[in-house]
Amino acid sequence: MMQKIEKIDSYPVHVEPFHVDFNGRIFPGVLGNHLLNAAGNHSQRRGWGIGALNENHYTWVLSRLCIEIEEMPRQYEDIEIRTWVESVMRLFTNRNFSILRPDGTPCGYARSVWAMIDMDTRKPCDLLSLYDGDILRYVVEPEENVCPIQGHGRLVFREARLARTLDTYYSDVDINGHINSIKYIEHILDLFPRERYERQMVRRLEIAYKAESYLGDRLSFYTQVINDNEIGVEVRKNEREVVCQAKICFE
Amino acid sequence: MMQKIEKIDSYPVHVEPFHVDFNGRIFPGVLGNHLLNAAGNHSQRRGWGIGALNENHYTWVLSRLCIEIEEMPRQYEDIEIRTWVESVMRLFTNRNFSILRPDGTPCGYARSVWAMIDMDTRKPCDLLSLYDGDILRYVVEPEENVCPIQGHGRLVFREARLARTLDTYYSDVDINGHINSIKYIEHILDLFPRERYERQMVRRLEIAYKAESYLGDRLSFYTQVINDNEIGVEVRKNEREVVCQAKICFE
Repeated sequence: MMQKIEKIDSYPVHVEPFHVDFNGRIFPGVLGNHLLNAAGNHSQRRGWGIGALNENHYTWVLSRLCIEIEEMPRQYEDIEIRTWVESVMRLFTNRNFSILRPDGTPCGYARSVWAMIDMDTRKPCDLLSLYDGDILRYVVEPEENVCPIQGHGRLVFREARLARTLDTYYSDVDINGHINSIKYIEHILDLFPRERYERQMVRRLEIAYKAESYLGDRLSFYTQVINDNEIGVEVRKNEREVVCQAKICFE
Repeated sequence: MMQKIEKIDSYPVHVEPFHVDFNGRIFPGVLGNHLLNAAGNHSQRRGWGIGALNENHYTWVLSRLCIEIEEMPRQYEDIEIRTWVESVMRLFTNRNFSILRPDGTPCGYARSVWAMIDMDTRKPCDLLSLYDGDILRYVVEPEENVCPIQGHGRLVFREARLARTLDTYYSDVDINGHINSIKYIEHILDLFPRERYERQMVRRLEIAYKAESYLGDRLSFYTQVINDNEIGVEVRKNEREVVCQAKICFE
């Protein structure tokens, strides 16, 4: 008899006091961190965690993250993050998330795109052939993939304006010495003034990671107004290379 | 028969990937955040949580925090934070912590000092008379107070040198609009270069909170070298008022 494969995991989150903004709602960066932890747990339980992968000199790289929230969870709320693999292609896999209240109603959803790289060559691997395509066993059926938010759009930066330049320090980097994915989100959201957050919330946040930056790199943040409520942000390191691009939608 | 009063609580912590530094050890600020959460839980369970207090227009204010660590927990480790009330005076209470490995051996300890203020007048309250001295019921017996680290010392800033000035943004403030206690620690530790963290770890961190600062305040960080391994840091807001003072001991 075939064993049923569990494809969707649930990850509980308690919204902590220092993890909420001045409106008492969870910081989008903190929520992003919880999503990545939920993803890490889900992979690990299926033998695809970075611990196991690193032994074979492979690692996951987050390529895109997109979060869309109807109502940001509040301080002391308990929420549940559900996550699953939507699809796997040769070089990328799509992982989706739902963010649920205790009564099961959704606060929002998220989408992410990941690549696997060889840690020695830094080149992407073929996910479909790795471990004999084992990862395909975890792809959910189409009817289980409830993630009714748009995928990542394409961002074009034509008239971007330098908004801020900052140096990176000890707190910015992760165990690999890279500026951590969540810190970019925090620095990007710090570009907007208090007044914006007093009257609006982040409704949707899209970020595409293009290159790695390191402790000591100087990051420049270029903004491009799309409309009153949508702003594109491009982050460049050392005045040259594009590190990531984001779009923030307020409401 | 008298009911036994539980005085010491245990708070489990899993060390998350994005919560460790480039050495794979938990960031001292993140550890501080866990301590404050453990403190909040402990108070809340005994009817002294800020939720209940706020209804009566009282709130806790962290006055001092001191963490001394023998070995910083690593990524993916599970640790246990134990916390209890050491003593209560009229205007302050001392709360201590131990930080334990799964086998019960200590990674380190912490001490904290708290005041209670009236939210309307911002004046301190008499802890001994509030709620008929109920808080005294939770003070541990001397033999239960195992916290073998030195208390807070006095810091004198005579020849402090301006090390950095920074503006404060959205991510820096808590639900009250104050720069959050943990963010000061992060900004202070960001004053030290990568090379320092490559060869040394934070062995002890002491911080005394003197005044509140707010979103938009400009913070200046003044450092004073005590010796090769000990540095004092004074944070002033808007070039005038002292906001907090810290001492960092590396080893």
